[in-house]
Amino acid sequence: MKFGYFDDLNKEYVITTPKTPYPWINYLGTEDYFGIISNTAGGYSFYKDAKLRRILRYRYNNIPIDNGGRYFYINEKGNVWSPTYMPIKKELDKYECRHGMGYTKITGELNQLESNITYFVPLKESCEIYKVTLKNNSTQKKSFSIFSYLEFCLWDAQDDMTNFQRNLNTGEVEIEDSVIYHKTEYRERRNHYAFYSVNSKIDGFDSDRDSFLGLYNGLNEASVPLQGKANNSIASGWHPIASHQLNVELDSKEEKTFIFILGYVENNKDDKWESLNVINKTKAKLLINKYSTKEYVDNALKDLKNYWNNLLGIYNLEHDDEKLTRMVNIWNAYQCMVTFNLSRSASYFESGIGRGMGFRDSNQDILGFVHQIPNRARERLIDLANTQFRDGSTYHQYQPLNKKGNAEIGGNFKDDPLWLILSVTAYIKETGDFEFLNEETIFGSDPNEKGTMFEHLTASFNHVLNNLGPHKLPLIGRADWNDCLNLNCFSEEPGESFQTFGSGEGKIAESLFIAGQFVLSGKEYIELCKEIGNFKEAERAQKHIDDMINAVKEYGWDGEWYLRAYDAFGNKIGSNENEEGKIFIESQGFCGMAGIGKDEGLVKKSLDSVKKYLDTYYGIVLNQPAFTKYDKNLGEITSYPPGYKENAGIFCHNNPWIACAETVIGRGERAFEIWRKISPAYLEDISEIHKTEPYVYAQMITGKDAVHHGQAKNSWLTGTASWNFITITQYILGIKPHYKGLMIDPCIPKSWKKYKITRIFRDIKYNIEILNPNGVEKGVKEVYINNKQISDNIIPVYDDRSEINVKVIMG
Amino acid sequence: MKFGYFDDLNKEYVITTPKTPYPWINYLGTEDYFGIISNTAGGYSFYKDAKLRRILRYRYNNIPIDNGGRYFYINEKGNVWSPTYMPIKKELDKYECRHGMGYTKITGELNQLESNITYFVPLKESCEIYKVTLKNNSTQKKSFSIFSYLEFCLWDAQDDMTNFQRNLNTGEVEIEDSVIYHKTEYRERRNHYAFYSVNSKIDGFDSDRDSFLGLYNGLNEASVPLQGKANNSIASGWHPIASHQLNVELDSKEEKTFIFILGYVENNKDDKWESLNVINKTKAKLLINKYSTKEYVDNALKDLKNYWNNLLGIYNLEHDDEKLTRMVNIWNAYQCMVTFNLSRSASYFESGIGRGMGFRDSNQDILGFVHQIPNRARERLIDLANTQFRDGSTYHQYQPLNKKGNAEIGGNFKDDPLWLILSVTAYIKETGDFEFLNEETIFGSDPNEKGTMFEHLTASFNHVLNNLGPHKLPLIGRADWNDCLNLNCFSEEPGESFQTFGSGEGKIAESLFIAGQFVLSGKEYIELCKEIGNFKEAERAQKHIDDMINAVKEYGWDGEWYLRAYDAFGNKIGSNENEEGKIFIESQGFCGMAGIGKDEGLVKKSLDSVKKYLDTYYGIVLNQPAFTKYDKNLGEITSYPPGYKENAGIFCHNNPWIACAETVIGRGERAFEIWRKISPAYLEDISEIHKTEPYVYAQMITGKDAVHHGQAKNSWLTGTASWNFITITQYILGIKPHYKGLMIDPCIPKSWKKYKITRIFRDIKYNIEILNPNGVEKGVKEVYINNKQISDNIIPVYDDRSEINVKVIMG
Repeated sequence: MKFGYFDDLNKEYVITTPKTPYPWINYLGTEDYFGIISNTAGGYSFYKDAKLRRILRYRYNNIPIDNGGRYFYINEKGNVWSPTYMPIKKELDKYECRHGMGYTKITGELNQLESNITYFVPLKESCEIYKVTLKNNSTQKKSFSIFSYLEFCLWDAQDDMTNFQRNLNTGEVEIEDSVIYHKTEYRERRNHYAFYSVNSKIDGFDSDRDSFLGLYNGLNEASVPLQGKANNSIASGWHPIASHQLNVELDSKEEKTFIFILGYVENNKDDKWESLNVINKTKAKLLINKYSTKEYVDNALKDLKNYWNNLLGIYNLEHDDEKLTRMVNIWNAYQCMVTFNLSRSASYFESGIGRGMGFRDSNQDILGFVHQIPNRARERLIDLANTQFRDGSTYHQYQPLNKKGNAEIGGNFKDDPLWLILSVTAYIKETGDFEFLNEETIFGSDPNEKGTMFEHLTASFNHVLNNLGPHKLPLIGRADWNDCLNLNCFSEEPGESFQTFGSGEGKIAESLFIAGQFVLSGKEYIELCKEIGNFKEAERAQKHIDDMINAVKEYGWDGEWYLRAYDAFGNKIGSNENEEGKIFIESQGFCGMAGIGKDEGLVKKSLDSVKKYLDTYYGIVLNQPAFTKYDKNLGEITSYPPGYKENAGIFCHNNPWIACAETVIGRGERAFEIWRKISPAYLEDISEIHKTEPYVYAQMITGKDAVHHGQAKNSWLTGTASWNFITITQYILGIKPHYKGLMIDPCIPKSWKKYKITRIFRDIKYNIEILNPNGVEKGVKEVYINNKQISDNIIPVYDDRSEINVKVIMG
Repeated sequence: MKFGYFDDLNKEYVITTPKTPYPWINYLGTEDYFGIISNTAGGYSFYKDAKLRRILRYRYNNIPIDNGGRYFYINEKGNVWSPTYMPIKKELDKYECRHGMGYTKITGELNQLESNITYFVPLKESCEIYKVTLKNNSTQKKSFSIFSYLEFCLWDAQDDMTNFQRNLNTGEVEIEDSVIYHKTEYRERRNHYAFYSVNSKIDGFDSDRDSFLGLYNGLNEASVPLQGKANNSIASGWHPIASHQLNVELDSKEEKTFIFILGYVENNKDDKWESLNVINKTKAKLLINKYSTKEYVDNALKDLKNYWNNLLGIYNLEHDDEKLTRMVNIWNAYQCMVTFNLSRSASYFESGIGRGMGFRDSNQDILGFVHQIPNRARERLIDLANTQFRDGSTYHQYQPLNKKGNAEIGGNFKDDPLWLILSVTAYIKETGDFEFLNEETIFGSDPNEKGTMFEHLTASFNHVLNNLGPHKLPLIGRADWNDCLNLNCFSEEPGESFQTFGSGEGKIAESLFIAGQFVLSGKEYIELCKEIGNFKEAERAQKHIDDMINAVKEYGWDGEWYLRAYDAFGNKIGSNENEEGKIFIESQGFCGMAGIGKDEGLVKKSLDSVKKYLDTYYGIVLNQPAFTKYDKNLGEITSYPPGYKENAGIFCHNNPWIACAETVIGRGERAFEIWRKISPAYLEDISEIHKTEPYVYAQMITGKDAVHHGQAKNSWLTGTASWNFITITQYILGIKPHYKGLMIDPCIPKSWKKYKITRIFRDIKYNIEILNPNGVEKGVKEVYINNKQISDNIIPVYDDRSEINVKVIMG
């Protein structure tokens, strides 16, 4: 069942009912100020840090679900309704929500009164704008009141939901003209406040929540809109909100537009006050003035659209399959940018108070957005490298506000260092910026520990070599990519965090995933070394790679698939010898991508086993059979019920690895099938089963062992976005950045006869047409540049051209 | 305005409308299993630890407020209502909530169908019982369905509200017969589960929240009761709940009773399972069976009432003032017990995930409940002493589960050690248990650091002497009793905790509060030393007390009142020299109670100043003038808006100190006036202003500088309960435990002509009649024991009697 449709022309998903199977959200903001907004205007905003600078209060896990946001109430002669459906939930004559690139537009109409609200954050601004257009579609004059409503968080989101003995006493506001200023704790150490304005005289206001609602009422029973008259309440402690009342008259067919602004202002510490306890409002007023008219706002919206069109225009596909093109050209690329902006901090599944920037997460995210914003990828790579220690190990996370490594969240995940090689090489391939290797960095978040980016890569490579186990395979540490496979943890107490409990050290447990990752990233490292002329280092590295390949073949192959690991007692994990967890996906993915034993047929055998044992209608599950009992020697993976999360769920992040591995052995049909199975646009028709948004990936879809197979959870903030983007754009469609140019190497279904890609690469626009007259899955037979054939499948970077036409014939 | 009335006979407060000015709650449980329940059945439960073993989920700061609890829905021919008003909120023909001692009874009637629900936790059990009696008051037969509803917390309350990427996948239940077992994470490291049973065959059930509610519905729109039919949903991830459907038929005037049990079960780790993934239900079934009939339940309820009657019978007052007697005999004593059970962990203002057992809090709490449960006070004193270091300093808090000191929460509050002297001497005076001084204890939560209880007291006393400042007054450290007066903190960053930021050390800032506290508790220490024959130590201590008294007189007197402190730069705080915060309450209270400079008239002068500058209609504010600006040299106190909390709020905890000090100079009229002003029973008529429960104290009432003067916050868990109990029972009514017996020393209003007190003390029942024929405020003229006059005002402890009649004539 569908709950909307794709409008590809406008790069929007159009939701046609407020009752989606789960709230379907979008993100506002591109730099410092961000908001989450659902299809009924629920959600919240924050400045830079979702935990410490929360602007709007939001209640996760609420009843009713998703109840709290940027709301409006209309009272037309006693008939009270909400133009975004929530919170009043009166059935509308017309409802539509358009989630676009960085904006959301919600239309609601009742009794021929139409409301159009566009929500967005202007580029470079610390505010969000709600452009509200009200139109009288009737033949009669209409008069009604509209009430805005939003609730402030007292800044620290964790404290806000726990420390009531203090917080119910601190709330403060100021009200001047049509603006409600939220200034809780500004009197003390804060130098920031929020404001909510409207570009019109108001007929009343409220800033005290219980006055607005009535003590025991829900948002759907709020007494002020129901009585049709604001209380002009001034919050003092308890719960500050902001609500304007506007009395509106509209002639038949007349429309009026109001501009509401929710803004965040920081003042210098010595310039906080206008007079005793009266805040300095200069910056707020400038902002309000800047967007005081519909025209100014429409221009800002146009700028925002241009911004996104430019980003998304860097890789553009023309193909018969419209689901494919909308994922590649719009939604997958967009989601990659969202993971850049938000990491794993704030979604409808991530509460915004937990995780900082993950080392592993962020490096993988870069793979998916580096072509869109290479400069900011560069900055982030430096931030990440700075949290790596000289021995190659890394902090697992860092805090976005101070960019310092955070040990409290746990560490010793031995896959972490290698991701840096993949992301740095991806960045240099995209940009040709070899100078980046000499960029001055630090180690261990210590400003005195200086180094270069290349030294970081070498440290990453060597870290594996310095941490080998009894079979010469890489030690796993606390865990590898699979956070939940904790072979050195042994926790027996309820609630102990598998991320932080004990040391997570061990000299026995080894990971076949890291082995594959080492070979794959080691090959990248070697290629880079050669590219910069460091052949000696390349040779050294190659020897270790060869050793690792041999170790995998000797100790890591189980007969039909790659083992997953050896545990702390030297026993096999992910082997036919095991009763549960006989086969895991991760090592098949990475050993396959690395091509380990490809010539001997291991890759093919392993991928055939994945298909045989792990594949389902909704995607490939992580392991089989699922674990039915807790095993302290395996850790968190066995804490989940079968079919959920890492315990035999379809953990979407690793599905594309299998697709990529399939392209290594040239099976384009199968690679695309795997990619397609979990691709949200293809799941739109089963939204009632899938539940989460049909335009973005979720972290997990429940596996075949779960009670409800095929149900997605944790949409938006997942490395799935990045890996699927690489898979489809580079491994399947076959346009891969290379140090020397753009490499063309498709691996596709036989039935694809042709497609076109426009790719902007190092400031050159490549118009690439790929033809497959013989219906092959892989193999480039001829390549033409501006109609001249070249011998290679790498399109060089020409200094003298800005646009190049490429024709590729497969065969 | 009143929202109910006191039923003193039944020891109940009877609430007659669901729309109280704030949810008015009660506590269930006496030992390990506790629940909070509001007047509309909102609230939650936990086992031992409100953070780590939360059984029911509760949403603080919710919209609608207090929406979540132990709910029932009745569907009678499509008319759906809730017999506790919430969550359906349909107006009832009859509503009544009786909060009693450890139980709550809510009656609701609609269309002649009456529901009576009694909620309680049986003594010694880990469960709560809801006895639901439904009665058909009409002349027609009635048939209807009743649906129970409660929502489970996934055990760790902090994790439950933040970690959705995991938690939405872990929920599991089992359903057998009429019982819903909540077993999330039991599959892994937990060995405990919850269950919800009813002693009847059921006609359906639900255990998945969204199935029961419908995804976007509030609890007031829940689809199952509205449709009148359970979905028989089985939770798998998302949000486990428990709901039973019972179809009931009642003849005219017939009634039926159902017993619902919410229970908590722990199994041995090796006895967790009945079969693969089927939990061992033996203990649950025993419990269900034990309370399977109305009779069994009524007996358990009777036992509970007896338990409370015994506790409250230890101090019983007969007096003309019924508000006075209900505070002394029922509610104040009850609240003291609640602070013993809950400390500061879980109320409608304390979220249950923050604070452990405070050293300062718990010692003061003991003063209020030691006469009721001396054995458990003894245990707690040992727990507390064990967290004191050998140098006398203490951990500020300890965790109830492991009883170990917790440094993370901050430390170095230099008043902490002295509270132990007051509580231990109170315990020995109550019990005569001098052996307790030789009790083996440890220091600093370190089992190897052995000591005796007496050594702890000496360490407390000496700690002050080893921490004197430039004026020979006690250093304040991070803060003294007033957590928010942070003279060695200097925080400038938003959100920094004043409890933990920096070292809080300093060799300059001194506290006049601690000076008074030192003299007061020092006198107790000396009295104890003499009592056990350690005259040398008594002499040593006396010398130091004399020195301190001199230091206060020389450096601590401001002319009209005692200074509050010297800051880190040696400047006066709480002096006429200051612009704001010229006078503070705390030093007046403790220096007055200690009688420092009494003979020179300092106590009288200081108390007159309190009346002149700090007194208001609603109580005595903490300081004047209020601070209008943040001052980093003073810390958190200046972070609050004027009139709130420590910044010139009526901080109820310290009002009784002033009342006690008034008794030191014999002003009974004024002492009682102070006590009465903040006494909840006397505030019942202004409940619409006071807002919180008229039967228990709140931590704070907003001061005259606040926007809404007289509004209470943070009811229930406050040292206010204990201090007011001591003030009224010991300092005003004048029955004081003493090492040698029961001392009689009233200080009362002149108009009181007589009152009677029954006091059980060291197993003897004293019937004490106090007569005041001459209308004095203080002074005992004659004392008769069983009609024989004695020369003293201390009634000795007789070994050979169980009941003694005492007559006291004041004059």
